[in-house]
Amino acid sequence: MLSKSQIKKLRSLQRKKERKNTGLFVVEGKKIVEEILESSKGWNELYATSTWFDEHPNYVGLDKSFEMSEKDLAQVSTLKTPNEVLLVLKQNDRQEFAEVKSEKVILALDGVKDPGNMGTIIRLADWFGVKQILCTSDSVDQYNPKTVQSAMGSINSVQLHYGDLAQMLTDLGTHQIYACDLDGESIYKTDFAERSILLMGSESHGISDEILDLANQKITIPSFSNSGIDSLNVATATAIVLSGFRSK
Amino acid sequence: MLSKSQIKKLRSLQRKKERKNTGLFVVEGKKIVEEILESSKGWNELYATSTWFDEHPNYVGLDKSFEMSEKDLAQVSTLKTPNEVLLVLKQNDRQEFAEVKSEKVILALDGVKDPGNMGTIIRLADWFGVKQILCTSDSVDQYNPKTVQSAMGSINSVQLHYGDLAQMLTDLGTHQIYACDLDGESIYKTDFAERSILLMGSESHGISDEILDLANQKITIPSFSNSGIDSLNVATATAIVLSGFRSK
Repeated sequence: MLSKSQIKKLRSLQRKKERKNTGLFVVEGKKIVEEILESSKGWNELYATSTWFDEHPNYVGLDKSFEMSEKDLAQVSTLKTPNEVLLVLKQNDRQEFAEVKSEKVILALDGVKDPGNMGTIIRLADWFGVKQILCTSDSVDQYNPKTVQSAMGSINSVQLHYGDLAQMLTDLGTHQIYACDLDGESIYKTDFAERSILLMGSESHGISDEILDLANQKITIPSFSNSGIDSLNVATATAIVLSGFRSK
Repeated sequence: MLSKSQIKKLRSLQRKKERKNTGLFVVEGKKIVEEILESSKGWNELYATSTWFDEHPNYVGLDKSFEMSEKDLAQVSTLKTPNEVLLVLKQNDRQEFAEVKSEKVILALDGVKDPGNMGTIIRLADWFGVKQILCTSDSVDQYNPKTVQSAMGSINSVQLHYGDLAQMLTDLGTHQIYACDLDGESIYKTDFAERSILLMGSESHGISDEILDLANQKITIPSFSNSGIDSLNVATATAIVLSGFRSK
């Protein structure tokens, strides 16, 4: 059984403000929790049902592991179908923006608002070895519960820098900027520079003119469709562009 | 105002059985509806609020267009935030399995259960010119409301064949089968055959052994991560594999 204050604390971390104040966030569900436990990344507190502890006896009785009832779980979960276990984790330490410069490949996102898409992009960035993502201030929070669930164990492997994206791109000045747009050179023919920024637009508005003006080159994902569609979801487009970059 | 029977009919199409009996399905929201109206694909009935009709006067007063109140919309929508307009469409005519043979590139899915992923895959298939998808019988329904919403205007551009996937792959016999797996040749180095089947596994269980045995070659998406993750979401993996195939 969880105490009222434990339930209150876990629930409070569903709010951005409280996550910011505490520097903590919650991941939920067997698959993501096990991915994080298997990594060497550390964790603050673990909450699980007896079913989960029966399958994971090594975690029984630790200082920071707590058993909860199914009813407790339903109260603290953000999932429609709560799934046995929650982990409280510490957020990434904020890195200085200056550290971004040393990265060879950087992702830049203009206005990605959908938390599932943002999480998928973080997962992809991790997979393709991108450690730094620059985003506009209006982009969805990295530690939004839905972002965390789609990023899975990659959530803390990538650093997001929120701010004035045009200013950050100007300050960098060290990389070639490739903007993914409807008209541009095919990514299959693009000869990416060793130091590249891959710039993706929002789900509904693409890349703003101010930011597009900073790009050195426009690139595009060729379509083979005859049905007249002219857009892909930003997360799948990012998958294709990152893979295109790494295929060279 | 909608009649009770109209509301009942629209709500009944949220159920697979009723979609199957009528051969109809519903798409919702301004973006997807406008994408379909701009295509030449035709539609059966249009339901919209006065706000939507004000912006689209060409659709006012047609035999098959109906105005509904916000309250009607809330009653018939499957979205958390209903969005002005619904379209009732006819499902694709079932094509014979024999027609699959003439396609150069075919997608095969083993057990994709998540409706959002299935919709994203249908969108990607359309984008990359794949007209036929083979799937196991336990895969999610093409016309599930969440599948339809992620597939957008591509929902009827691709034909899904549900059945015994191993049997379908054996019956085809005309294509090289490439199975996307954790160990395999890098997709960047794969020399795909002109007639190829790209085989993807489910979100949680990958490709079953029975089906993997039918593959001519295993392929893999190289990872550049140092955080130890070993999986990508099936929809993003499909994006990368389709792009890899088309980049040759």
